[in-house]
Amino acid sequence: MFIESDKEVTPAVLAAMENTTDPRFKEIITALVRHLHAFAREVKLTEPEWERGIGYLAELGQRTNDTHNEAILASDAIGLSTLVCLLNNGKDGNTETAAALLGPFWRMKSPVTANGGSIVRSQTPGPALFADIQVKDAKGNPLAGVEVDVWQASPVGKYENQDETQADMNLRGKFTTSADGKISFRSVKPAGYPVPTDGPVGELLRAQKRHPFRPAHVHFLLFKSGFKTLVTQVFVDDDKHLESDAVFGVTKKLVGDFRKREDKAPAADVSGEWYSLNYTFHMEPGEAHLPTPPIK
Amino acid sequence: MFIESDKEVTPAVLAAMENTTDPRFKEIITALVRHLHAFAREVKLTEPEWERGIGYLAELGQRTNDTHNEAILASDAIGLSTLVCLLNNGKDGNTETAAALLGPFWRMKSPVTANGGSIVRSQTPGPALFADIQVKDAKGNPLAGVEVDVWQASPVGKYENQDETQADMNLRGKFTTSADGKISFRSVKPAGYPVPTDGPVGELLRAQKRHPFRPAHVHFLLFKSGFKTLVTQVFVDDDKHLESDAVFGVTKKLVGDFRKREDKAPAADVSGEWYSLNYTFHMEPGEAHLPTPPIK
Repeated sequence: MFIESDKEVTPAVLAAMENTTDPRFKEIITALVRHLHAFAREVKLTEPEWERGIGYLAELGQRTNDTHNEAILASDAIGLSTLVCLLNNGKDGNTETAAALLGPFWRMKSPVTANGGSIVRSQTPGPALFADIQVKDAKGNPLAGVEVDVWQASPVGKYENQDETQADMNLRGKFTTSADGKISFRSVKPAGYPVPTDGPVGELLRAQKRHPFRPAHVHFLLFKSGFKTLVTQVFVDDDKHLESDAVFGVTKKLVGDFRKREDKAPAADVSGEWYSLNYTFHMEPGEAHLPTPPIK
Repeated sequence: MFIESDKEVTPAVLAAMENTTDPRFKEIITALVRHLHAFAREVKLTEPEWERGIGYLAELGQRTNDTHNEAILASDAIGLSTLVCLLNNGKDGNTETAAALLGPFWRMKSPVTANGGSIVRSQTPGPALFADIQVKDAKGNPLAGVEVDVWQASPVGKYENQDETQADMNLRGKFTTSADGKISFRSVKPAGYPVPTDGPVGELLRAQKRHPFRPAHVHFLLFKSGFKTLVTQVFVDDDKHLESDAVFGVTKKLVGDFRKREDKAPAADVSGEWYSLNYTFHMEPGEAHLPTPPIK
């Protein structure tokens, strides 16, 4: 087919893709072509703008490596990651526990830790946090034997692999729910932090006068055969960026009850103020699978 | 704003982008967000599919370097580059000469060559080609003093910087139109070639059962102050891939009259078969600018 004008480009491309073998891939790529072409037409993208866009796209990949994924960050910063997450979890957003972004900091092989143990693996100043987590199925029955990965930033907003002062795997742990579907652990209250702003995503945020902060949160990944793997985050309820998360990750259901306590803490070495967190997750029936770790 | 369901994601993202300083950038990025979100909703993109897509995106950047631009190639392979080109050139596709893709092989500083000279700079087997190119303004008046960059693949389908057997800058030249708006040069008849298929774009083409070939062509870049820089290609009319160019670059207007000749050639050392090309370009009034070279 010869192309005679801009109006003939999209039909020509879709015709060329007609023989795509995999039907789902065909559905996805032809929809992407239609929507990207509609975007270019709507804004009448100029050649210099296209050139700038291609350069931006290439930089996302060039900035992605074993310890940082700028492409995921870009998807996060335009709300695409959260949209995909919410399209695939909960029943029209109405189940009691929603999923959330995996984020760029999950690592495989967190240290296996006994229920009630601590994930503070090197000296980490900040208020103590004692978490009691209940896991249930969709009907509300406690779920035993769920593997729960926990990871979080420190009280100064750094993950261990961003911070030389923390031991390897500090503030990370892998737990298994007890017969009554519970895990509990000791940690420290996490702080919020800015997403990396030295790359193209930082450039985007500055151009849009958006701050780069994520509200403080604890990440959870819940895995049990026969259930859809639940990747989620629970947010600290006193954080000032709860309603302006740079990556659109906060739903109301994910705001945790991080309660400031001054009564007797569950550990003898804690004096004065500490925090408790009680939270309940519901897992839906489905296929268990582990995501590809965003960093090695 | 808290996000309560997938339906609230797009409004939340658009609201966060409300303070974007540059109005044109705001128009572009908010349109891109709307169209990408609409795409994800339409196909109900799953988390593993999103993950695969992000990996693909990152690979486009990681495969882009000083000598190859996989991101441009991907844009070409889904027809986006041609669409942008046709949206910005010609009056609704009705002017006599359309623009075409810059492609990934343009280099700055082609050797300045006298009118009538040869761009064959090292022994390059294949049929001789003698080109006579006329450049006119939109009203049909000859345009003198136009700088014309010419570059092309060899008769085995390789650009000089892909092929050790060719001298630096072989089959590249920079000409200036004479008082009657003409350039002429000697070359060899180019062959078609496959786009690089060792990266993500090759993977796409294989999944879609598309061949990777571009029909044979000669590239032109026409530059003159006061006129919109014209980037284009003229295709060899006997190529079997004219109607199935892997990157959708062929319009009928760009198919050249590469005439097989057996009469006396314009050079004494040519015996037997040779080719002539006569082609007329029209330049529109506008701003002259040089594109960023895709390779250094």
